[in-house]
Amino acid sequence: MTYPDWLNQPETPFLLIDEVRYKNNIERLYKHVENLGSYVRPHLKTLRSPEAARCLLKHSHSPATVSTLAEAEHFANIGYTDILYAVGISPHKLDRVANLIRQGITMHILLDTLEQAKAVREYAINHNVTFSSFIEVDCDGHRGGIPPESDELVDIAIMLQGKGTILTGLLAHAGESYHCHHIDELHKAAKAECDAIRRASERIRAHGISCSILSVEATPTALYSQELENINEVRAGVFSTFDLVMKNVGVCSLDDIAISVVTSVIGYNRKKNWIFIDAGWMALSRDRGTASQQEDFGYGLVCNMDNQPLHKIYVSHANQEHGIITLPPNSDFTLDDFPIGTRLRILPNHACATAAMHKNYQVLLEDGQQQIWSRITGW
Amino acid sequence: MTYPDWLNQPETPFLLIDEVRYKNNIERLYKHVENLGSYVRPHLKTLRSPEAARCLLKHSHSPATVSTLAEAEHFANIGYTDILYAVGISPHKLDRVANLIRQGITMHILLDTLEQAKAVREYAINHNVTFSSFIEVDCDGHRGGIPPESDELVDIAIMLQGKGTILTGLLAHAGESYHCHHIDELHKAAKAECDAIRRASERIRAHGISCSILSVEATPTALYSQELENINEVRAGVFSTFDLVMKNVGVCSLDDIAISVVTSVIGYNRKKNWIFIDAGWMALSRDRGTASQQEDFGYGLVCNMDNQPLHKIYVSHANQEHGIITLPPNSDFTLDDFPIGTRLRILPNHACATAAMHKNYQVLLEDGQQQIWSRITGW
Repeated sequence: MTYPDWLNQPETPFLLIDEVRYKNNIERLYKHVENLGSYVRPHLKTLRSPEAARCLLKHSHSPATVSTLAEAEHFANIGYTDILYAVGISPHKLDRVANLIRQGITMHILLDTLEQAKAVREYAINHNVTFSSFIEVDCDGHRGGIPPESDELVDIAIMLQGKGTILTGLLAHAGESYHCHHIDELHKAAKAECDAIRRASERIRAHGISCSILSVEATPTALYSQELENINEVRAGVFSTFDLVMKNVGVCSLDDIAISVVTSVIGYNRKKNWIFIDAGWMALSRDRGTASQQEDFGYGLVCNMDNQPLHKIYVSHANQEHGIITLPPNSDFTLDDFPIGTRLRILPNHACATAAMHKNYQVLLEDGQQQIWSRITGW
Repeated sequence: MTYPDWLNQPETPFLLIDEVRYKNNIERLYKHVENLGSYVRPHLKTLRSPEAARCLLKHSHSPATVSTLAEAEHFANIGYTDILYAVGISPHKLDRVANLIRQGITMHILLDTLEQAKAVREYAINHNVTFSSFIEVDCDGHRGGIPPESDELVDIAIMLQGKGTILTGLLAHAGESYHCHHIDELHKAAKAECDAIRRASERIRAHGISCSILSVEATPTALYSQELENINEVRAGVFSTFDLVMKNVGVCSLDDIAISVVTSVIGYNRKKNWIFIDAGWMALSRDRGTASQQEDFGYGLVCNMDNQPLHKIYVSHANQEHGIITLPPNSDFTLDDFPIGTRLRILPNHACATAAMHKNYQVLLEDGQQQIWSRITGW
């Protein structure tokens, strides 16, 4: 046994962060992006934790990305001043954004319709506030944004020139890169994302409109970009912990995964070669992101407490508070290798989804000591 | 517009409980079970809410079922005194159970291995406490428990006769009934569950051991049981809110579903006929329980704010904070019917999983007023 004894103490299930791996992952991406002359605006949505953010944001003015206004408000309250809310704005939410701006926070909002731009402008004029906006550009048809060649892009940019609004940047998200399997594909996806946003920037510039920030995002493209010319910032989130989905995409190894769920054995079904654990989908999440990938890890890959993966042993089923590990017929292990109470670590499919099931995280620090990090909840 | 105006106020996304439907659902099951001469020990895991529990537990001594010790402790603190922790016990958790017993709570634990029975007995003797136990009986091979005919059943029952332990009951969970589609199948599953547990009871009685409670569970079998002879109690959870999975099983209609997520439109992908909403899997959960059922509802069925389902319009994709509604090619609706900011209600696949994503719930009371119910979090 090489893991520290305190890992046997917290009640299971609990989420565990490995600080060494977490910091190494952060250093890897930051170095890569900085070597290419750009800057990381980390997405804080994966762990949504003030303590975790300290490793990602060196200064109070370091740029940050969030996925909810609850995060924006919390990070603003503890001193961070440059925050991008990277989900399309609903006019109902402008009150809270305006409050943050009045507190002195550099808040950026995101939009991709003329309708939103009009609503933002109207609100700004009526409430005597100025909103900094990013326009979302579609680079791969994955989700939202408008194509770089669309007329609407220019119309929105023009709309944002008026009183009450500033066009700060253009933003893309290469979500399709999660479906890549080879380095060549990752290189291509990264280039396509940068090209789309540079093209969008040229088009609005041709109409005499400039914006100061071109922003790209997605962990796979961030790690496999070969050039970031004119790209001011790179957003990425899951790179800090990685997970089994990212392992299948090919951007990390199992040894890089900094997140696991610690669980206890609570029973068996001997006929089916099943081991029951106290981590069901309440602890692991319902995410089955690896189901359509090259290796389907079920609800997670089983490791011993030293974090050594047990070959081909997965959490095959998940009920609310029960997980089921199925031992394959030709396994090196039998049920007797897993007495009641045995602790195991489960590597998750999708770090963001698994972390979302926990209100705080146990952290194994570099020196082997224990720390607890909290999670910001709600919207 | 017939819904009360306050539903336009809370920030989206939020979870909404319809109190009229919730209370009607409870009354339906309670009447059915009481007419058959048995009693409901409701499973509180669906909403995990003290306010929601008030509708389920008429008295402080009403029997309750929980899925975590966090729930047991919370419900004990607010005065409930008869609590079954219905997940196989891990010896590590006996300290917390013992604390509750010392507070005067009638706490019941669950086990299905001789190993657990030994550990419980040893702890009881060493710590001068007496544990009330249920043995889990397998009625359909769905999850845990031991077959009624197994030798281990008798061995465990004998082990629990000693000092420090009381065998209070036998418990079964007809989890396979979630795969039923017809009333005949539901009737059969309900009978099989009761028969398995009565048979188990006979077998231990033949060894001179009696227990006072025979306990069965699962919403489908609870609602479609035709007799409950000698069955003292029925546990069930999701019956109180229902959901799309239960609709597909055939035990409720869409009009019975008492839970929805209220969301706002935040954008479009016009090429793909997509509407973006601010309810992603953080608000809806990753549960895809209807994927393998007769109607696959994606991540949820879209309704207007009056709770009228929009025919064949589903949340087709979910990212962390983005949901995507795809309008079918032949739909009565176009994107223009859903302006930015439009509020919609999404019926969820699986109530337990969706409720788990929210720290509190908005409640539409019988008189149209607003209330907020809280959720117990953690383990």
